[in-house]
Amino acid sequence: MTTSKKIIVIGGSAAGPKAAARARRMDEFAEITMFQKGPDLSMASCGFPYYVGGFFDDRNKLLCTPTGVVRDPNFYWNAKGIVCKINTEVTKIDRAKKQIEYKDLLTGETGTQGYDKLVIATGATANMPPIPGINLDGITTLQSMQDADYLRKIRDEKKIQKAVVIGGGLIGIETLEALHLAGIELTMIELLPQLLTFLDWKMAKLVENYLKSKANVVTKNGVSEFIGEHGKLTGVKLQNGTEIPCKLAVVAIGVRPRVDLAKAAGLEIGKLGGIIVNEYMQTSDPDIYAAGDCCEIPNLITGKNVLAPYGDLANLEGRAAGENIIKGNVATFPGTIQTGVCKIFDYGVGITGLSEAKAIDADIDYVKAVNASPDKPGFMDGKLLFTKLVAEQKTGRILGAQCLGPGDVSKQLAIWATAIKGKLTVDDMVNADLPYAPPFSLAIDHSIATAHILQNKMHGLFDGISALDLKTMLDSGEDLYILDVRGADEYEQTRLGVGETLIPLGVLRKRINELPADKNKTIVTYCKISLRGYEAAMLIKAHGYTNVKVMEGGIAGWPFEKEK
Amino acid sequence: MTTSKKIIVIGGSAAGPKAAARARRMDEFAEITMFQKGPDLSMASCGFPYYVGGFFDDRNKLLCTPTGVVRDPNFYWNAKGIVCKINTEVTKIDRAKKQIEYKDLLTGETGTQGYDKLVIATGATANMPPIPGINLDGITTLQSMQDADYLRKIRDEKKIQKAVVIGGGLIGIETLEALHLAGIELTMIELLPQLLTFLDWKMAKLVENYLKSKANVVTKNGVSEFIGEHGKLTGVKLQNGTEIPCKLAVVAIGVRPRVDLAKAAGLEIGKLGGIIVNEYMQTSDPDIYAAGDCCEIPNLITGKNVLAPYGDLANLEGRAAGENIIKGNVATFPGTIQTGVCKIFDYGVGITGLSEAKAIDADIDYVKAVNASPDKPGFMDGKLLFTKLVAEQKTGRILGAQCLGPGDVSKQLAIWATAIKGKLTVDDMVNADLPYAPPFSLAIDHSIATAHILQNKMHGLFDGISALDLKTMLDSGEDLYILDVRGADEYEQTRLGVGETLIPLGVLRKRINELPADKNKTIVTYCKISLRGYEAAMLIKAHGYTNVKVMEGGIAGWPFEKEK
Repeated sequence: MTTSKKIIVIGGSAAGPKAAARARRMDEFAEITMFQKGPDLSMASCGFPYYVGGFFDDRNKLLCTPTGVVRDPNFYWNAKGIVCKINTEVTKIDRAKKQIEYKDLLTGETGTQGYDKLVIATGATANMPPIPGINLDGITTLQSMQDADYLRKIRDEKKIQKAVVIGGGLIGIETLEALHLAGIELTMIELLPQLLTFLDWKMAKLVENYLKSKANVVTKNGVSEFIGEHGKLTGVKLQNGTEIPCKLAVVAIGVRPRVDLAKAAGLEIGKLGGIIVNEYMQTSDPDIYAAGDCCEIPNLITGKNVLAPYGDLANLEGRAAGENIIKGNVATFPGTIQTGVCKIFDYGVGITGLSEAKAIDADIDYVKAVNASPDKPGFMDGKLLFTKLVAEQKTGRILGAQCLGPGDVSKQLAIWATAIKGKLTVDDMVNADLPYAPPFSLAIDHSIATAHILQNKMHGLFDGISALDLKTMLDSGEDLYILDVRGADEYEQTRLGVGETLIPLGVLRKRINELPADKNKTIVTYCKISLRGYEAAMLIKAHGYTNVKVMEGGIAGWPFEKEK
Repeated sequence: MTTSKKIIVIGGSAAGPKAAARARRMDEFAEITMFQKGPDLSMASCGFPYYVGGFFDDRNKLLCTPTGVVRDPNFYWNAKGIVCKINTEVTKIDRAKKQIEYKDLLTGETGTQGYDKLVIATGATANMPPIPGINLDGITTLQSMQDADYLRKIRDEKKIQKAVVIGGGLIGIETLEALHLAGIELTMIELLPQLLTFLDWKMAKLVENYLKSKANVVTKNGVSEFIGEHGKLTGVKLQNGTEIPCKLAVVAIGVRPRVDLAKAAGLEIGKLGGIIVNEYMQTSDPDIYAAGDCCEIPNLITGKNVLAPYGDLANLEGRAAGENIIKGNVATFPGTIQTGVCKIFDYGVGITGLSEAKAIDADIDYVKAVNASPDKPGFMDGKLLFTKLVAEQKTGRILGAQCLGPGDVSKQLAIWATAIKGKLTVDDMVNADLPYAPPFSLAIDHSIATAHILQNKMHGLFDGISALDLKTMLDSGEDLYILDVRGADEYEQTRLGVGETLIPLGVLRKRINELPADKNKTIVTYCKISLRGYEAAMLIKAHGYTNVKVMEGGIAGWPFEKEK
């Protein structure tokens, strides 16, 4: 009989437990030990904002199996035969001796333990701004179970009226929603010119406009100082001098890979600060694997390494690592297309693949289109979705999709993520055979309609213009003929107010001679979502106009002020 | 100047209007005429059950544009420059003269009209059983706006207490729901041994079990006679002699392509009774195209022609036909993977690609797995989903997925439909990068978990056994050791009651010696959804047992009677 294999996993959040459990299923007799610095194991940390926000009240739900058993060391030992050492920090990886050194943080005891194979799943550390006052009471992140408890207590006590959230990324926005639901008046502070920087500007601006109905939003402005009295936060001072009084500040300005152990052990660290792994999740030491937020992984479209600290990827990486440490390198994790989604009150918002900005960065020739249309028929209470689709110009291969709105965003993103995985083109998606019934989608699904629009554009049927480009042209005083082809009733309700002319599509054929005499003049058409705008453009072009553009996304996607 | 092109479209429901509108966008000056036998145009016929069921009250919503304009001949002329002749039947296609003959059904007037290109979009006819009493008052289909009006009136008048729905397909089930919501006591009658014949038996059985909580369900039994008094329906007599009193019977036993005109014109008709078209939707006459339910189209997996009367495909086919009649054959519609979905009260249910039965029919070596797990975390009120995934054995290429349950079925099907389109394999889907956040999915999405299960099976990590196979083995008295590894509390609530032994997973390692001494004995493990059942099987196999099987789908997917 051979000796059983000794496995050590460092980190007990997502990638670690997955690797340990997968290893156990591959080898019932391996000795598997998982070290966790904190007291909790396998916390559903992506669920923290929903616990804080009161979507549910039982804290244990974040720590339990679906049947209600808390995932503590007892559970891991009984159900999975895995030894868990919690409140225990691994202080050193000694590659020569193939052992780790650890310290029990409660008792102070130290020890060593040998391994045949090691998995590093040390996760990420929240960034904190290096500014005065950072240690005041009332400043927190939302990264640990303890942070969640702290914020949940604030919610339940209802003593705090004003708070700021610093950072307009996914976590910042989810935290903002949670605290808003607690009745707290919020200000979001973002250093950059837009929130959710994984989105292109206009898409982020639509989110910001929506968010402003719930909270104050400050962009292009960072926090220069936390102000306090008696050690407690009383406000934040912005870089432009403004002071915002608040008793709570949640910092959510991103995370960085936690690689101290790996670095000290001499493992290869990448340019982005993450542990370098191959497709088997193996580090530069063949006996050491790594998984989760502490790693760099390749973007499958650009081929370049990225940091992608997502819980779903951590699990998939952990699964591959857990199989490979037992069976040798058989399971691969090829990389990411950086799919991300979040809920923002009644909106969903997310992206899969490349934004336009990233396509430009990657020096890819691309085409793009915007579709604003509902997820379901009006009679089934369909909700609006905005999708921006980016494809490779030459091949039509889908590169990325951004989607937001009150409609079913996650389904749209799932479709595009799978399409990107399958290297599908715009032409493929034009005839996708998706599940259709009125409770679930339009007869032509929003995703397919988006492909239709981009295909029409690629075939030269129409030229699009973005709201931003139109605004820029208007602001610079260009001589344009702006044509709103909606109904008079719609025009009465809301309009751009940029000097547009109203000619409803239904009378445009009769009134075609009201258009400018100069057939080379730039004409921009639109309607609510620019479907009628597109039909109008086709009609106008057929009458010899050479420079007709459709404003993509229509008035519904206009991110600037409107009249009325 | 050239003469403008003359286009005729026969049929004004889905494919016809789409073809006409697309043709208009391709050519502003073509003369386009659309003939419609009935009074309504572009009806959202898939929405009829939801109008009948009271999801909305305004009938016009079925006939309106999203901005509330009724799609009548006036609208088509003003907004699209398309002449619509409603209540007008096309009686003949004269291919030699390139003209059609028509008759105004209100005035009786007849006429002819020439075409350069013709599109046939005559749809399908509802099948009616050729049995006595079929013409009694109270027997209807739900195919036309008039049928919808008739059934909605019945709902609103609340005079009918009992009704039967004949046919357990998509339309039958949607109609059943609609009438149930009207407070009518319902019986569904299906001639075949299962409802929803596009599903495999067990999946259909799970739907049937759920449906039985809402209505009576009779299978393996057809209607032999409609019974009436004074010309009005009073009941139906079944083939086994049973009589069911009812004043309303909705017939939903499928549709057949309406091809009389095409056949009389000598166009090629396929073995399944549909018009034969090429990938450009062109019939055997190069100047005549066809689109929608009247056509046969290829199944993209088997390559064989099928009838696929779905509203979404009708639109896509119409779009291709509409472009090609103007521009020559440039747009293709490659075929279908027969994706279908329907809502059944709080369940969704559907399929994309091949069922196991169809894979067998197509003589494909396949593998399969069942996954029962929630769509979202428990703390976000996740709902159960059952997915059965079928893949090609040799390549792992995804062939089909069936999904049902209270969870988000349509998203799952959309993912699989896109995966099939992209020819993705099980290994590809194992590392899919889908949008994850707790409001939308589990960290490992249900679809990815399904791929994990099938990959594990393909790698020989475990053997599955279907509930049906297990039941058959039990009924034939085979000597099995059935092991339930759930908790004692779960066992108290509900159990199979087939002589199983309970050993919770958490104590299985300690009690492993309680298993049969004979290491070759067949052991079947399960839990609620068979995730713990899988872990138990791995553990047991590691102890030398050679014949361990996991019951796929767990007790949640057991379609037979349970104890308690």
